[in-house]
Amino acid sequence: MVEGLILHEDPRSGNCYKIALTAALLGLPLERRRYDIMRGETRTREFLATVNANGRIPVLQVGARFLPESNAACWYLADRSALIPADRFDRADMLRWMFFEQYNHEPNVATLRFWLAFVGEANLSADQRAQIMPKRIAGEAALALMDEHLATRDWMVGNRVTLADIALYAYTHVCEGGAFRLADYHHIGRWLARVAGQPGFVAMG
Amino acid sequence: MVEGLILHEDPRSGNCYKIALTAALLGLPLERRRYDIMRGETRTREFLATVNANGRIPVLQVGARFLPESNAACWYLADRSALIPADRFDRADMLRWMFFEQYNHEPNVATLRFWLAFVGEANLSADQRAQIMPKRIAGEAALALMDEHLATRDWMVGNRVTLADIALYAYTHVCEGGAFRLADYHHIGRWLARVAGQPGFVAMG
Repeated sequence: MVEGLILHEDPRSGNCYKIALTAALLGLPLERRRYDIMRGETRTREFLATVNANGRIPVLQVGARFLPESNAACWYLADRSALIPADRFDRADMLRWMFFEQYNHEPNVATLRFWLAFVGEANLSADQRAQIMPKRIAGEAALALMDEHLATRDWMVGNRVTLADIALYAYTHVCEGGAFRLADYHHIGRWLARVAGQPGFVAMG
Repeated sequence: MVEGLILHEDPRSGNCYKIALTAALLGLPLERRRYDIMRGETRTREFLATVNANGRIPVLQVGARFLPESNAACWYLADRSALIPADRFDRADMLRWMFFEQYNHEPNVATLRFWLAFVGEANLSADQRAQIMPKRIAGEAALALMDEHLATRDWMVGNRVTLADIALYAYTHVCEGGAFRLADYHHIGRWLARVAGQPGFVAMG
């Protein structure tokens, strides 16, 4: 059994959505407390003192304890469920794609979406502007690697949906907000539809 | 039982070292194949065709299968051992620190070490030079967060060494190569000694 679960989130964040989607696919009840990061609502004294001292979301609250890092929160919810492979190599391989997501995908694909679709290009600093092109190239490389991987299989790992698919779905399905072109990645397109067709699936937001 | 294990590595890389240290603490035999990334030895046709198509190390070879991503490889080795907590929350909390390591620590602390101690400041591009200060600030924030966390406990998670300690030890103990000052982080200093005192511990390299 799982203790009372509260997701502290901004519903526009893919990192927050991963956790909500994991809970939905598992049929776990999850209370959702919403904050607007653009208005500094995760920087209030109360948030910093009780939820997360570094002001970041998502945070999964489990009873009186707090768990930051989206992929760790997904793991907590899915532990010992079919969303984590029973096979030892596949389990590690699932984590491989989740670390890939946080290292190679999110800092590029999600950051460009945040900058272009939420902050607005006109409001970026010179430093941020200088990073658009390297992040575009690195983001396209991450999407191309996924697309090639999915050319010969239905799911990122094994033969059913796992946390690797959920983690990568979150920012891939909205990558056009960062001016990436989903039409360039046919295998990803079919995989996105497969994820969205899972029983219990919920949309972002 | 674990199949024949081969670590494809550059022994100066902390990401590679994590895997060697995990195997050592577990007493697992691990063959180590060394490559010099500064001489392009992971970009040869043979490496790209057989070990990792994107030319990155470490890769853990398990029989005929290949597992990239250092923290996923550590998980594979440690699966069902005492290096992964038996408690469900602690297990997720361990992963929380491993994702923190790859997102907040490694891209700053390890990258500055690579640039300053291996590439050499004089050989950096203008883009890289512009990133030194933001990476310095973010790396110091990551080290400060660890130091505060370790002020009230001996280990990152629970009451014994876990993969979270191994993952964070790798680049923290050599952070002075990136001009971070270990003397500023007293709790980290004591924790480094605790990790180095573990039975089976091996030094980097």
